[in-house]
Amino acid sequence: MYLEMKFDEDGNVTTFEKKKMELYHELSLQARDLRFQHLTSITARNNNIIIRMEALKAVVTPNSLLVLDFRGLGLERWLVLELAPQLNGDHGALATHSLPFEFRALEAILQHRVNTLQARLNEVHPVILDILESLVDPKLLSADRSKLHILLQNSKNLSELETDIKVFKDSLLKILDEEEMIEELCVTKWTDPRVFEESSLGIDHAEEMELLLENYFMQAEELGNTTRELKGLIDDSESVIFINLDSHRNVMMRLNLQLTMGTFSLSLFGLMGVAFGMNLESTFEEDPKVFWLVTGFMFLGSGLIWRRLLSFLGRHLEPTIPPQIPTVWKRNQINSKGGEVKSGLR
Amino acid sequence: MYLEMKFDEDGNVTTFEKKKMELYHELSLQARDLRFQHLTSITARNNNIIIRMEALKAVVTPNSLLVLDFRGLGLERWLVLELAPQLNGDHGALATHSLPFEFRALEAILQHRVNTLQARLNEVHPVILDILESLVDPKLLSADRSKLHILLQNSKNLSELETDIKVFKDSLLKILDEEEMIEELCVTKWTDPRVFEESSLGIDHAEEMELLLENYFMQAEELGNTTRELKGLIDDSESVIFINLDSHRNVMMRLNLQLTMGTFSLSLFGLMGVAFGMNLESTFEEDPKVFWLVTGFMFLGSGLIWRRLLSFLGRHLEPTIPPQIPTVWKRNQINSKGGEVKSGLR
Amino acid sequence: MYLEMKFDEDGNVTTFEKKKMELYHELSLQARDLRFQHLTSITARNNNIIIRMEALKAVVTPNSLLVLDFRGLGLERWLVLELAPQLNGDHGALATHSLPFEFRALEAILQHRVNTLQARLNEVHPVILDILESLVDPKLLSADRSKLHILLQNSKNLSELETDIKVFKDSLLKILDEEEMIEELCVTKWTDPRVFEESSLGIDHAEEMELLLENYFMQAEELGNTTRELKGLIDDSESVIFINLDSHRNVMMRLNLQLTMGTFSLSLFGLMGVAFGMNLESTFEEDPKVFWLVTGFMFLGSGLIWRRLLSFLGRHLEPTIPPQIPTVWKRNQINSKGGEVKSGLR
Amino acid sequence: MYLEMKFDEDGNVTTFEKKKMELYHELSLQARDLRFQHLTSITARNNNIIIRMEALKAVVTPNSLLVLDFRGLGLERWLVLELAPQLNGDHGALATHSLPFEFRALEAILQHRVNTLQARLNEVHPVILDILESLVDPKLLSADRSKLHILLQNSKNLSELETDIKVFKDSLLKILDEEEMIEELCVTKWTDPRVFEESSLGIDHAEEMELLLENYFMQAEELGNTTRELKGLIDDSESVIFINLDSHRNVMMRLNLQLTMGTFSLSLFGLMGVAFGMNLESTFEEDPKVFWLVTGFMFLGSGLIWRRLLSFLGRHLEPTIPPQIPTVWKRNQINSKGGEVKSGLR
Amino acid sequence: MYLEMKFDEDGNVTTFEKKKMELYHELSLQARDLRFQHLTSITARNNNIIIRMEALKAVVTPNSLLVLDFRGLGLERWLVLELAPQLNGDHGALATHSLPFEFRALEAILQHRVNTLQARLNEVHPVILDILESLVDPKLLSADRSKLHILLQNSKNLSELETDIKVFKDSLLKILDEEEMIEELCVTKWTDPRVFEESSLGIDHAEEMELLLENYFMQAEELGNTTRELKGLIDDSESVIFINLDSHRNVMMRLNLQLTMGTFSLSLFGLMGVAFGMNLESTFEEDPKVFWLVTGFMFLGSGLIWRRLLSFLGRHLEPTIPPQIPTVWKRNQINSKGGEVKSGLR
Repeated sequence: MYLEMKFDEDGNVTTFEKKKMELYHELSLQARDLRFQHLTSITARNNNIIIRMEALKAVVTPNSLLVLDFRGLGLERWLVLELAPQLNGDHGALATHSLPFEFRALEAILQHRVNTLQARLNEVHPVILDILESLVDPKLLSADRSKLHILLQNSKNLSELETDIKVFKDSLLKILDEEEMIEELCVTKWTDPRVFEESSLGIDHAEEMELLLENYFMQAEELGNTTRELKGLIDDSESVIFINLDSHRNVMMRLNLQLTMGTFSLSLFGLMGVAFGMNLESTFEEDPKVFWLVTGFMFLGSGLIWRRLLSFLGRHLEPTIPPQIPTVWKRNQINSKGGEVKSGLR
Repeated sequence: MYLEMKFDEDGNVTTFEKKKMELYHELSLQARDLRFQHLTSITARNNNIIIRMEALKAVVTPNSLLVLDFRGLGLERWLVLELAPQLNGDHGALATHSLPFEFRALEAILQHRVNTLQARLNEVHPVILDILESLVDPKLLSADRSKLHILLQNSKNLSELETDIKVFKDSLLKILDEEEMIEELCVTKWTDPRVFEESSLGIDHAEEMELLLENYFMQAEELGNTTRELKGLIDDSESVIFINLDSHRNVMMRLNLQLTMGTFSLSLFGLMGVAFGMNLESTFEEDPKVFWLVTGFMFLGSGLIWRRLLSFLGRHLEPTIPPQIPTVWKRNQINSKGGEVKSGLR
Repeated sequence: MYLEMKFDEDGNVTTFEKKKMELYHELSLQARDLRFQHLTSITARNNNIIIRMEALKAVVTPNSLLVLDFRGLGLERWLVLELAPQLNGDHGALATHSLPFEFRALEAILQHRVNTLQARLNEVHPVILDILESLVDPKLLSADRSKLHILLQNSKNLSELETDIKVFKDSLLKILDEEEMIEELCVTKWTDPRVFEESSLGIDHAEEMELLLENYFMQAEELGNTTRELKGLIDDSESVIFINLDSHRNVMMRLNLQLTMGTFSLSLFGLMGVAFGMNLESTFEEDPKVFWLVTGFMFLGSGLIWRRLLSFLGRHLEPTIPPQIPTVWKRNQINSKGGEVKSGLR
Repeated sequence: MYLEMKFDEDGNVTTFEKKKMELYHELSLQARDLRFQHLTSITARNNNIIIRMEALKAVVTPNSLLVLDFRGLGLERWLVLELAPQLNGDHGALATHSLPFEFRALEAILQHRVNTLQARLNEVHPVILDILESLVDPKLLSADRSKLHILLQNSKNLSELETDIKVFKDSLLKILDEEEMIEELCVTKWTDPRVFEESSLGIDHAEEMELLLENYFMQAEELGNTTRELKGLIDDSESVIFINLDSHRNVMMRLNLQLTMGTFSLSLFGLMGVAFGMNLESTFEEDPKVFWLVTGFMFLGSGLIWRRLLSFLGRHLEPTIPPQIPTVWKRNQINSKGGEVKSGLR
Repeated sequence: MYLEMKFDEDGNVTTFEKKKMELYHELSLQARDLRFQHLTSITARNNNIIIRMEALKAVVTPNSLLVLDFRGLGLERWLVLELAPQLNGDHGALATHSLPFEFRALEAILQHRVNTLQARLNEVHPVILDILESLVDPKLLSADRSKLHILLQNSKNLSELETDIKVFKDSLLKILDEEEMIEELCVTKWTDPRVFEESSLGIDHAEEMELLLENYFMQAEELGNTTRELKGLIDDSESVIFINLDSHRNVMMRLNLQLTMGTFSLSLFGLMGVAFGMNLESTFEEDPKVFWLVTGFMFLGSGLIWRRLLSFLGRHLEPTIPPQIPTVWKRNQINSKGGEVKSGLR
């Protein structure tokens, strides 16, 4: 049993249930023609256009559009509020409103598909931009891991969207590549004798159909370009996040090293204090000057050694590259003195 | 010697052994036609379709299907329980049950191949998702290395599956690209005179064959899309794992640095205590206030120095970027204050 | 209402407003022909060439060029100062100044488009080179994070530019791939009988049109090559930045390790001093030699242990690779002794 | 002078030296036809097939195969032991042994080429698998660097092999894409009148040649697939190695941090002991309970502070992600509690 | 004004200046034909071949070769010493010396171009190999950063070379793809009646031209393959460098951790010594055995705790993976016990 909504040329909308066999017979189709095996497909069979666009399954006949099994797919709103008026051709929302019925029906469906893809892109696009914006923030020491989680989710959605756009483009391209298939889509041409007369007035059906399909192909291409750019931006941002995290780490490591140097110096000279703290006779016990001498030596010595270590580190991390090495890009006077995060404790 | 299972048009299944030469003679083929050199191939030779799909080697004649060397390949179950009924066309599982025998045979074999590929995908897909799910868990400090091992194994399987899908698609595409080869596959057309009459009733064999092959090509394409998305997900997850690990490391490093600062402060002022602990005369020995003074100075001094170092670190890691730098994506009011893992010990 | 600027063959420029219907009627076009749905498109309809190049919307008729809705797009300067003289053909800035009007108009518009793309490339190119130059500076311990931000912004712009170049190339390629479309663009050929006579003198319109389009296709290709090289340079530089940061970290880590070794040695032998500092009777209290002995032992022992640890580290980090391993590239006498950042504190 | 080995149709093998001009004359070729400028090429010139497959340079005439300059290339063994018998067609090793001589010669040479490529793949394949197997071993703290060296060498060989396979495929594809070139390769067809009669018996030379070339094209494709999978495996393994090394580092860093916390606690409370160790009067000197009090306080205090720090670290590294975040892949009840390397010293 | 060097068929070389208009007139070309707008182009116009190969601008007429604006481009040496003799055909350096003049001229120019590209590759190739060889040296703790700089420069040059090779290939391919364009390049065919007679002797000009162009296309392809392999090698080497640096870091980190464990143990037991060093009464002061007891306990305790910590670390870093996990590649008896850098201080 098919639940079927029928839109005819004159704007009437009727809904009824029909046995499968009845439907096949009515459209002169065979069972295998209405299997809708692929998520996205447009085929012409026996002067009908059989379309599937994910949830939407439709058959375009020369003077009506049948939408099958439309219940529970979130399509009702669109069917009633948008599709019906568009097919009527009242307010001319479609570029094809002066063309035969199948053009209007096909355009409405393709437009709906592109709109759906666009809506999905509009959903992930700002989320991804926001998350990247906050992740590449150079002030952050560590990436916010719940945001990474959301980013991963969204880039997964983006990949799926990319696939769906590609599949949509491929299904159009397959038709555009074969003259014959375009002709077959112009079902009125084969069924309505008046059309041949009309076409002598300068409108070529096949050419109009090609323009229509090409238009949606290019719209899908634009969506595809945007998703590709977005993927590239995610990749670039990840590199920047890594460089950021690495830079933070290096800065912290230098500070740590500088403090380790300090601790080492204090331990070295503290050993002297420990030595004099032993309960052993050093013969200096009674001389009050020695106390100040040793104490001063300990503090001064620590300080001096630390300073030497720090300056050693400074020299060590900034190797003097031989001046004869040219810059990578042969441009003169690049100011590379900058480097905001230059010095640590020195 | 070939071990051969023969399914004829009327649903009879017979198994027998045959000498190679006998078989060649029966089918009017030459030795090189039945070499099955490539893992996946479909060729028409002398009104027979010779098919190899990995383990399955078959010859479709106008009124029978021969499966060769089927023993020990795990095919028996399928041959007996599924293939035989499908070819009978009893319960109409195939879209082609009203078409000549070779269509039914070809469809059954292609369907089997796609099912096998799908089964392999179904095997690796949930395993990979589960492992990635647990690896990108932001709570983990280090990746579970036995899971990495399993991931590597599965992504290897995924690559092999990808190759097999590609090879299957290519073998179909090679036929679809040449009208002539499609015609050759319609073996009944050339052997059965009645068919020509029938075809005047509107069924074009070559067109039906093209639809059949295209159908399986598109099913393989959908499998290919899924594997590609899965590979992309693995790559994206790996980036997230790296950022996670790096973030953890940075957080730990800051904690470490903060503690090193504390230890340094304590060492510095501890040196004072060590100095007074020396068995040298400092002249303050007898003054009880000095004890409290020095002790207090040591603890307070350490604390103060530590606090200064911590606030120095805080400033150091959050460089004030000149406010005139616009955000990367020219969007206003991005809230980048978040950052759950913001503060350490401060 | 369209605001329209009209350039005719004789160099007159007029601006006026026109109702849409009027315009359609004048050009014998239909509403859908002037929808300009895609950012970049060139189509021939009814002896007019309809062009959109992002902001610029134009219609080329056999003897005039109409620019539509040109206000507020930053195009005025170009329209008045450059386009008008070029179309006049006065100073022969165009290669096509001896050819029919539509050639001149088309060339002027394509040249403008290529110039715009080139200008955008000229904007990001030096900025990216400068930033990379300063980021790969081996002296920097950490990447300047505000520069990374700018780099990210510019590589985003570069991606967008890449897409626009690709779209421009594709729209030219679509025409170049179809002989028929090239013919359609030569609108004079169909409207002006004199041209047929002229063409007998050896100028083939379609061929000239092909050369013209090919020329701009190749210019766009050159731009595309430059952007691709620039993207490659960004990738390569990022690798170098990572290796730089990692190298710095390793050098600092070795220094840190060397100091940790020192601190460990001092702690170990300091423990001896602490032992003797206990208020417990060790029986050596009165012997003045013991003080010097123990003190000397503490300092010397620390030093010796440290030295052993350092040399252990040295051996540990430079594993002797078995000499039988050939070099990767089978070249003899590679001098790999270099390595500027070789030694730490040793 | 060419050193030439000649295999004729009847199985005779003769070796002799010949002047270049003589050879050109004999084969009716010109000097430029025998330049062998490209490493891999198959061309038909004047009823001869001129072949170069890296070291092997050969000319196939309608009834003989000339191998030129074969000395010192490691080809002798193959020429004598394998090629001669194959061309004889004695033991029917070739699929083409019932076809004209040039088929047999061409097949023998192509088979030799594919075997050589396969042998090179067989050489690098197990080495790479072994090395990757040992490098991804999660137990290793650091990658064995001599193995990395060998891996690099082998992946360089793999790249070269990939290029050679591609070149071989391209040279076959160039012929397969042009009907005319396939015809030219069937040299017997043009020289031997009997063949035309024979071909009326149902064997089409050009078709047989196409099958032959296609067969080797597909074998090369299979080799190409394997190399591509192997390259993918190297990439995947490198990611796993990096995650492994990073995980090890994080685990060590946490241990280090936990110990730094301990050392800090001990230093903090040790300062108290140092204070009481000063030679200053604290008025508690004589009270024996104070010794135990302070000592106990030092040890207990250190322990308590350390415990607090450890639990702080524990909380810090496992941020509670808001429960409303869905899992990435919308699957329920993923058990992510695992994590073998969960706890450190706590 | 053009500065022009003219090589005629008979080997005469003349240099003179000519007005642009004069040149156009002489060659029957139009101004736009000699714009040389693209860096690499080969076009036939009016029985002349107009060629630009970067610096070299040339026009091939049926019986002479004009090189334009050749001064100051470093071409003089080649023009005088190599080009003139080649065109004379004296010593037969060209494969085309028996063919009409335009063949010789075209071959000389294409050969020159390929030689130039080859020379550029020869320049960067050994430099890159040398640098990579020294950078992947496993003994180096940190990458030599001045070498990275040079590597970056050279890989930039390599990218530019890759683009130039691609552009050169594309310009040849554009001709090879169109029969008609190949015909147009055979200028003698159209101007010299004798050639038609000659061609009846079996030499087809268009076919010879195709062979000539194809030859240089394949040479360029070989160059392209080498650059691609080199780029792959750079990428692979970078991975190895990263793994090397990471491995070094892990080894150092373990050593550091082992020493931190030692320092912690010493601090812990040192606290006991500090306690006894306090000027507080512990009642043990007078017992000489207590000194040795406590001292021994301190040293022994430190040692024992350290050992426990080290063995804890050992167990921690080598998690026992459940044995049921199969190896990744299902190969038996992989010896993964190796691992040269296995143990630290233990």
